[in-house]
Amino acid sequence: MIPVLEIFGPTVQGEGAVIGRKTMFVRTAGCDYRCSWCDSAFTWDGSAKDDIRKMTPEEIYEELLSVGGETFDHVTISGGNPALLPQLGGLIDLFKEKGISTALETQGSRFQPWFRDISELTLSPKPPSSGMETDIDKLHEILEGTAGQNVSLKVVVFNEQDLAYAKHIHQLFPEVPFFIQTGNDRLDEKDHAKLLVYLASRYEWLINLVMPDSDFKRVRVLPQLHTFVWGNKKGV
Amino acid sequence: MIPVLEIFGPTVQGEGAVIGRKTMFVRTAGCDYRCSWCDSAFTWDGSAKDDIRKMTPEEIYEELLSVGGETFDHVTISGGNPALLPQLGGLIDLFKEKGISTALETQGSRFQPWFRDISELTLSPKPPSSGMETDIDKLHEILEGTAGQNVSLKVVVFNEQDLAYAKHIHQLFPEVPFFIQTGNDRLDEKDHAKLLVYLASRYEWLINLVMPDSDFKRVRVLPQLHTFVWGNKKGV
Repeated sequence: MIPVLEIFGPTVQGEGAVIGRKTMFVRTAGCDYRCSWCDSAFTWDGSAKDDIRKMTPEEIYEELLSVGGETFDHVTISGGNPALLPQLGGLIDLFKEKGISTALETQGSRFQPWFRDISELTLSPKPPSSGMETDIDKLHEILEGTAGQNVSLKVVVFNEQDLAYAKHIHQLFPEVPFFIQTGNDRLDEKDHAKLLVYLASRYEWLINLVMPDSDFKRVRVLPQLHTFVWGNKKGV
Repeated sequence: MIPVLEIFGPTVQGEGAVIGRKTMFVRTAGCDYRCSWCDSAFTWDGSAKDDIRKMTPEEIYEELLSVGGETFDHVTISGGNPALLPQLGGLIDLFKEKGISTALETQGSRFQPWFRDISELTLSPKPPSSGMETDIDKLHEILEGTAGQNVSLKVVVFNEQDLAYAKHIHQLFPEVPFFIQTGNDRLDEKDHAKLLVYLASRYEWLINLVMPDSDFKRVRVLPQLHTFVWGNKKGV
């Protein structure tokens, strides 16, 4: 059984290699990390533990159909860290059988054999501001285990120390498509216009740091696009 | 000689398949279209005709180096319609020789053999709100002539009639990666916060139309990200 916290969509993917892609979301519960700025802390801090549903792949698929109808052909699996769940393989198989392509984001702390069947895999190792440690050997293992697939690295950057970390990761894996992304450290901001102006200024801040830096050439710098539209609202 | 209006960067690509990519820009003069809402009308309306410089590929490359230094490995060629210029082949060859990858955006009204050497080609046929007519046969010809390359279609949408046009194009070429993009019809807005809130609301409007539509499945919906950061400023 798969511990599920949210099933929603269709909406646009707000981040990374397939930013803007029409997709459904399945959010699993549980994480091995406790990032200081996590925007989905309810997946691991116990606050939503009564909302966790243990579901079979068929139940998840049925709910996706009942929520999204005939409008989608893509599902993003997010968390928490879905890579904690060996049993997700059955869901990925079912999606393949139904002609649904899949995206997965994980910090890269665990490998699962079902990674090989993910259409777009994002590894998002966490920078110093998260308070977490990166297992570089594990990143190597995952990248070797998924060679030839669509895999990208994405690092969220809140400050210059995070950017130095991003550079280190990019230099370790120069051939892997690399995304640098602004984070959102105003998770409590309710005034949408104010948040929008702030997030755009943070994106500009990051662009201004990356552009003159010759160690960052083949990189993409992106915001979290969904926060530009929906602010801190969940389930969109 | 190549008629050039702007050389600037590095900055982020604000649109389409490689949104966020660090890139330099070369903007050529001249267009066969007169789109009602063109955000670069100075390339064809005569207002900047004294700024046009006739440059050789080597001169363009030298200026890119003097502006961008060692910070880039990617150049976006924009217009106007660069596809009017058979002589761009020499520039593309020079970029290849220097290990620089290239992106080109064109409406798809002309084919040039040098399209085959473009790393990321965007065909952006213009919807009814532009006031222009689309040459569907030419789109077919270009897509056949660039088969196997990274080519995507992008349609800018200002209203529901444009979205119907986007659907038509997507259905004609269902296998080509398809981008639906909001336009900016407030080219004179100087208040950045106001423009930002407006553009985000237009993006949400477009998302809300595309998401429930089962004819749009494998699509990506994106804003013009640079307008979120720099508003209507040129040369960034």
